[in-house]
Amino acid sequence: MNRVTELFGIKYPIIQGGMVWCSGWELASAVSNAGGLGLIGAGSMSPEMLRAHILKCKEATDKPFGVNVPLLFSHLQETMKVIVDEDVKIVFTSGGKPDLWTSFLKDKGIKVAHVVPGAKYAAKCEAAGVDAVVAEGFEAGGHNGREETTTFCLIPKVRETIKIPLIAAGGITGGRAMLAAMVLGAEGVQIGTRFVASWECSANAGFKQKVVECEEGGTVLALKKLAPVRLLRNKFCAEVLELESRGATAEELTQLLGKGRAGKGMFEGDIENGELEIGQGASLLKGILPAGEIVDSIWNEFLQARKEISEAGAQLGS
Amino acid sequence: MNRVTELFGIKYPIIQGGMVWCSGWELASAVSNAGGLGLIGAGSMSPEMLRAHILKCKEATDKPFGVNVPLLFSHLQETMKVIVDEDVKIVFTSGGKPDLWTSFLKDKGIKVAHVVPGAKYAAKCEAAGVDAVVAEGFEAGGHNGREETTTFCLIPKVRETIKIPLIAAGGITGGRAMLAAMVLGAEGVQIGTRFVASWECSANAGFKQKVVECEEGGTVLALKKLAPVRLLRNKFCAEVLELESRGATAEELTQLLGKGRAGKGMFEGDIENGELEIGQGASLLKGILPAGEIVDSIWNEFLQARKEISEAGAQLGS
Repeated sequence: MNRVTELFGIKYPIIQGGMVWCSGWELASAVSNAGGLGLIGAGSMSPEMLRAHILKCKEATDKPFGVNVPLLFSHLQETMKVIVDEDVKIVFTSGGKPDLWTSFLKDKGIKVAHVVPGAKYAAKCEAAGVDAVVAEGFEAGGHNGREETTTFCLIPKVRETIKIPLIAAGGITGGRAMLAAMVLGAEGVQIGTRFVASWECSANAGFKQKVVECEEGGTVLALKKLAPVRLLRNKFCAEVLELESRGATAEELTQLLGKGRAGKGMFEGDIENGELEIGQGASLLKGILPAGEIVDSIWNEFLQARKEISEAGAQLGS
Repeated sequence: MNRVTELFGIKYPIIQGGMVWCSGWELASAVSNAGGLGLIGAGSMSPEMLRAHILKCKEATDKPFGVNVPLLFSHLQETMKVIVDEDVKIVFTSGGKPDLWTSFLKDKGIKVAHVVPGAKYAAKCEAAGVDAVVAEGFEAGGHNGREETTTFCLIPKVRETIKIPLIAAGGITGGRAMLAAMVLGAEGVQIGTRFVASWECSANAGFKQKVVECEEGGTVLALKKLAPVRLLRNKFCAEVLELESRGATAEELTQLLGKGRAGKGMFEGDIENGELEIGQGASLLKGILPAGEIVDSIWNEFLQARKEISEAGAQLGS
C-alpha cells in the first residue's frame, strides 16, 4: 500500500491513461480487474456514449475505475453531469484549469487527479484541492506541455514542489521504468502507450500494429503553434512538419488539421492521413497483449527490478 | 565495483562531461580527486592549450582522468596527436563516426567511450570496438540527437541493443536520478549541467549564475536545421526561435549564429548575445559548489535512495 493505492482503493499503483479513441470500457475494466486503475477516455465520446461505457464498465468490474475528462472540451457540462449521475468515483482531468471543476467534483465525493506538464501547474493543482497530480513528461503521447520538460527532469521538480500524491507519466512502458519513476519521487505511474498495444484497446488494429512497429525517432512533437501534440510519423505528420519548416502560421496548420483527424486515424484506421497520437515509449513495445497480462508483467518486472537494485548494494558502494 | 568503475579505474561510476568552455584541468582534476572521472573538454581548445591542460591535470591529480574530443572538429589530427604524446589513458569521443578513430586510440592502449543519442548509433559503437557507450537523452545540454529520444526511453532501448558498458547522460543532476538511470539499465552516469555549477568550472561566473537561476522551460532545443543544440533562453536564443518560427533556412540560421558565439557567451560572459549551452536539469540546481562536494553529494544521495527503495518493499508489494 502507498498513498496512490489507498487514494483509489487499488492493488497496484498502475493507472491506465484515459486516451482518446483507445480507452473504452473494455480496456478500463480489464486494467481494473487486474489490480490497476482503468480510466475511460471521455475526450472522444459524446455524453451518451460515455454513459454507455460507464454502465458497461460497472458490469464488467466490481473494482474501482475512473473517467478522464479533457477540460478544454465542447460538451463539458453534460459530460460532468453524466459522471455525477452515474456515480463515478474517480475523475482524472487534463488540459485547462483545475480550479474550475475540482470543487464541483469533490463536493460530490469524487476523487480528482489532474494532469500537468510542469511544477508550476502542479502547485496550482494542489492549491485547487485536487487529490493527486499526474506529471507528464515530453516523451508522452498526445497533448503535451510547451516547456518540453522530460520525465527525468519533471518528476523531481514536481516532487519538491507539492506534498500531495504524485503519479508519473511519459515514457513509462514497463516495470523498470515504473521503479525509476518512483526513485525520482513518484508514488504511482500512468501508462498510456503500452496499453494501446492491448487486445482491449478500442483503437483500430492497423493503428495498434503501427504503434508496435514504431522505431526510435518514430514520433515527434508537432503542431507547437496550436497545442503541442506527439504524433506517430505518417503522411499527415510529414505534411505538418513540412508546413512548420516553412514557417506556417497557426491558421495554416489549423486548416491542414481540419476536423476529426484523430478519430479518422486511431479509430477508423486511416493510417496515412489520420492524426496518430502515441508516446516515445512505442519504440520499446514487443507486441499486443491482453491488458491484464500487461498489468501483471509491469508489476512483476517492477518487483524484480527492485530486488536487483537492493541486491546490487553488495557490488557497488555498500 | 561495476564494469564502468573497473574500466576506468575509478571509485564511483560518476563521469563529469567534457563540456566546451566549462571543463578545464581544474574541474577534471577536482572530479577525479573526489573519486569520479574528470574529463577535459578539448572541443574549445587549441591542441597546444589542450596539452597545457593535460599537463596541469596530471600535476593536480594522480587519479585517472580523460579528454572529450568532438569528432567533427577542425584540428582533430593534432588534437589526437597531443592526446597520444601526453599519454592520456581515456578518451570520450562525441559527434561523427566512432569507427574512424576508435582503432587508432585503442592501438595506443587508450580506453574509448563514444557518446550517442540512439540505440542504432550505440550498435555502431559496439561494432567499432569502443569500450563503453554514453547514451545521451533529449534533456541534455549542448548538441543533441535528431530523434529527440529522452533518457527515460533511450536507456532501456540502448540496454537491450548492446552488451558493452552503458553510461547514461541527460537530465541527471543528483543521486536519485543516478539510481533511476541505473534502474533503467545504465552502469554509470555522465553529468554535465550539475558540474557547470561548480567552483572549478572554467565558465564565466555570469553564465554559471544564469544556469542556477534557470527555471522549468528555461532551455530549448534549437537550431534543428543546423545541428540540434539545447540552449539556455536569452536574447540570442529568442532571435533564433523567432527566425525558426518564420521558417528560416539553414543558411539564414548559420548567418545569425556566426562564429564563436559559444565562447562569447559561456567563457567571456556575454549573457544576452552569446550561445549558452545547458541541460534541462539546470532547473533542479540549488547553488554553485566545489566539484568534489558535488561528487560526494551525488554518491551519498544515490546510496540513500537505494536504501529507501530497498526498504520500501516492506510497504509496497513484498
